[in-house]
Amino acid sequence: MIRSMKNRRTVRSYTEKPISESLLSELLETACRASNTGNMQLYSVIVTRDEEQKKKLAPTHFNQPQVMSAPVILTFCADIHRYDKWCQINGTESGTDNFLFYTNAAIDTTILTQSFCTAAEDEGLGICYLGTTLYNAKEIAEILNCPKGVIPICTISLGYPAETSDKQLRLPLNAIVHDERYQDFSNVRIKEVYKETDEDPTNKKFVRANKRRNLAEVFTQIRYAKKDSEFFSDKFLRLLKEDGFIK
Amino acid sequence: MIRSMKNRRTVRSYTEKPISESLLSELLETACRASNTGNMQLYSVIVTRDEEQKKKLAPTHFNQPQVMSAPVILTFCADIHRYDKWCQINGTESGTDNFLFYTNAAIDTTILTQSFCTAAEDEGLGICYLGTTLYNAKEIAEILNCPKGVIPICTISLGYPAETSDKQLRLPLNAIVHDERYQDFSNVRIKEVYKETDEDPTNKKFVRANKRRNLAEVFTQIRYAKKDSEFFSDKFLRLLKEDGFIK
Repeated sequence: MIRSMKNRRTVRSYTEKPISESLLSELLETACRASNTGNMQLYSVIVTRDEEQKKKLAPTHFNQPQVMSAPVILTFCADIHRYDKWCQINGTESGTDNFLFYTNAAIDTTILTQSFCTAAEDEGLGICYLGTTLYNAKEIAEILNCPKGVIPICTISLGYPAETSDKQLRLPLNAIVHDERYQDFSNVRIKEVYKETDEDPTNKKFVRANKRRNLAEVFTQIRYAKKDSEFFSDKFLRLLKEDGFIK
Repeated sequence: MIRSMKNRRTVRSYTEKPISESLLSELLETACRASNTGNMQLYSVIVTRDEEQKKKLAPTHFNQPQVMSAPVILTFCADIHRYDKWCQINGTESGTDNFLFYTNAAIDTTILTQSFCTAAEDEGLGICYLGTTLYNAKEIAEILNCPKGVIPICTISLGYPAETSDKQLRLPLNAIVHDERYQDFSNVRIKEVYKETDEDPTNKKFVRANKRRNLAEVFTQIRYAKKDSEFFSDKFLRLLKEDGFIK
């Protein structure tokens, strides 16, 4: 079993040590070996090292500090544009203007991203996913010169780790894995599987600091509030419509 | 660098050797260490070993033979239901009925799936993604007893390899990776980056067998025809609407 996968931590702070072109290429090449739908490779990766480009990207990621401090930012995009062009010069209609093609491309892009992350971590690098990509996919696409049909899905910051963070809690495996059929949760069972999370000292401090009654309130009222999710849902859906993936 | 990632192949044919419960659990536990949005873990995994359940799943995957022949089928689902229940018993509205929550869950589910695949392959197991999951997500959810808010995203078949297939061609890395900004493709450039694919003997045989002029026609007219993609897009979008993720 891959030891680096078991002990991995998200890394948000990096040393000055640069990442060589040859290592980056080798990691990307390795990641491309992962499965993808029909071998269409409906994805592209934009490499950001340039300071000016980082400055433009930073606000789209809500100025999370690692955008400026990481030596490399990678934006993994669903790319239907390249496939469309290939079909076009071969004299055939691509038929990609629908939600299924977008979804396949988004899944393949995520598979590529995660394969890259595993390979990078195994080489001693640290990564952090920036969940803000979906919030501002359109603005990011513009900064990176992406044409219609190329949609940012995952962004990671990448560098050699300057610090090790604590291993994060996870739900017990039996809350995630179901044998043969999904076993629905009673209230008692939900309390059981979330017990460690709810009673974790760091989480409890977080609840007090935010003057809430419990961790679920912190999540639903502050971190992932309904009105914010709805705002960014509308934005992202608008992009998918503009690009022709939803009618 | 992880050697198993570089040399991996999709495996569709498996030996009789069973996969132990302990190995499966260890692999799933390892996969759960991967990044996920806000540590909400918006995913679940359904393990299918039972012959009767496989028989029910087989037609939803267009009777691809590995559904019956693999010792284990894993269905990785976006799961907003468990999080909703946790919010509910904590007296707060979850605010998850929107496209952003679905998308985050689908991405996290795919990250989990791919982490699992890498760990499994490193242990000598073979996997195959079944892209049919999105086509029949609703029917699969019913067979697996998934409540509203639990949506199948990725399915893999899993087992010890009975055969090794050829390593698949990939586009040259410089067709996928862009430095600082997306470099759009001229027609000449498209022809260049698809040259090896277009001229590959196996692909050419495929073109002749299907009586088409080129590989792009095989993809657009047979393998991923527009009318099929549109049919399955509508089906999948309908499920997302029924479950409240698109208004």
